[in-house]
Amino acid sequence: MESGLFLAEGNKLVASILPFFECELLIACPSWMAMQENLNVKELIAVEEEEVKKASLLKNPQEVIAVFVQPQHPFRKEALENELSLLLDGIQDPGNLGTIIRLADWFGIKNIVCSPDTVDVYNPKSVQASMGGIAKVQVFYESLPELLMELKHLPIYGAFLEGNDIYREKLSDKGIIVMGNEGNGIRPETEKEISNRLYIPNYPSPIESIESTESLNVAVAAAIICAEFRRQQIYSQ
Amino acid sequence: MESGLFLAEGNKLVASILPFFECELLIACPSWMAMQENLNVKELIAVEEEEVKKASLLKNPQEVIAVFVQPQHPFRKEALENELSLLLDGIQDPGNLGTIIRLADWFGIKNIVCSPDTVDVYNPKSVQASMGGIAKVQVFYESLPELLMELKHLPIYGAFLEGNDIYREKLSDKGIIVMGNEGNGIRPETEKEISNRLYIPNYPSPIESIESTESLNVAVAAAIICAEFRRQQIYSQ
Repeated sequence: MESGLFLAEGNKLVASILPFFECELLIACPSWMAMQENLNVKELIAVEEEEVKKASLLKNPQEVIAVFVQPQHPFRKEALENELSLLLDGIQDPGNLGTIIRLADWFGIKNIVCSPDTVDVYNPKSVQASMGGIAKVQVFYESLPELLMELKHLPIYGAFLEGNDIYREKLSDKGIIVMGNEGNGIRPETEKEISNRLYIPNYPSPIESIESTESLNVAVAAAIICAEFRRQQIYSQ
Repeated sequence: MESGLFLAEGNKLVASILPFFECELLIACPSWMAMQENLNVKELIAVEEEEVKKASLLKNPQEVIAVFVQPQHPFRKEALENELSLLLDGIQDPGNLGTIIRLADWFGIKNIVCSPDTVDVYNPKSVQASMGGIAKVQVFYESLPELLMELKHLPIYGAFLEGNDIYREKLSDKGIIVMGNEGNGIRPETEKEISNRLYIPNYPSPIESIESTESLNVAVAAAIICAEFRRQQIYSQ
């Protein structure tokens, strides 16, 4: 929302993010409210489930809809120095963005930087798919080529069909993982800053040609890459 | 569709599945048709891009919409004997199903068996998300507990927050991987047939309690699990 607010729905999601965001408005069934330890909200409206259904954007509405204030975190590139971070170059699908935030939370990735044309993190579908990840992972919007030029001293990874087999690479425990747009991949201006090109091996045989129609969904590729970074960090030492 | 037909849209998707399915109807721009080597379709309608936009279900319609015949593959449980296969227990989101079909294709998994209440593979959103995977991966609908009882001699894997660390398990190159419903996971009747409980380690520290709100999207979890099965098969020998 332009308003600086965002919408979240669903019993589990709202309960999980309520402690982390300022809540402007909460519309819920008394049954759901009764289960919450404290409801620190500006405006609270108790309604019947039928009323929630009418206001809901979800296919299967539940007992609560909440409006939160979008937090303002100033971006500091220093925050990326000693961590593993994700950069998203033009992700268009809000479900993909939310799913990436959710897996970043799982894999202890604290910061995601998106290109300015990436879908809004506060799109209700992104919030929904993040499953509470937006409360733990900070998402910023910055120009990626400029940022990557300032982070040249870090390894900058990207996934490509003609990259190096990720399982044969010694992956760093700090650096940047760049994921590209669903249809077009990583932009040339961003790609030229990438120092380590990774390839997720398919099965049974590696892809011969990048003409292949086969590929992986961007959130799926991000997940396999993040899992391998963490596996090496935990087990290969 | 009840009709035994299904819809596919998009220049790349339709081109990639056209050789594999019987096409009842193709509505496309001459520009797209000109790029196809052969158009073996029952009915062909050339229209302008504007017309495609009017008929499209997509946010960003392209130059072609096609109606295909749903193929009828009889299910044979013998097909699962010497392979790695996926079983889906009540997946509700068509995007998740399509994404799982797409990654199954990537990882050379030829068969997916879904519980009868899993979303329809021919839902336009499933077809879209599979990105052509539906032409390579066969998807069946069967009662999972009965099927698993007949496959007891195979290792039957499932992902659980209190399972064994997948990276410390010696994974089999044949067997069944069961993935559960987005909200409720694997059904008890199905779960009791599972012989190997796997856990995808999070980072930095393994989850202490299954009460944790953290989790992974089902397609993301399936991807990390399938990637690890194939990694061990390719590299750990």
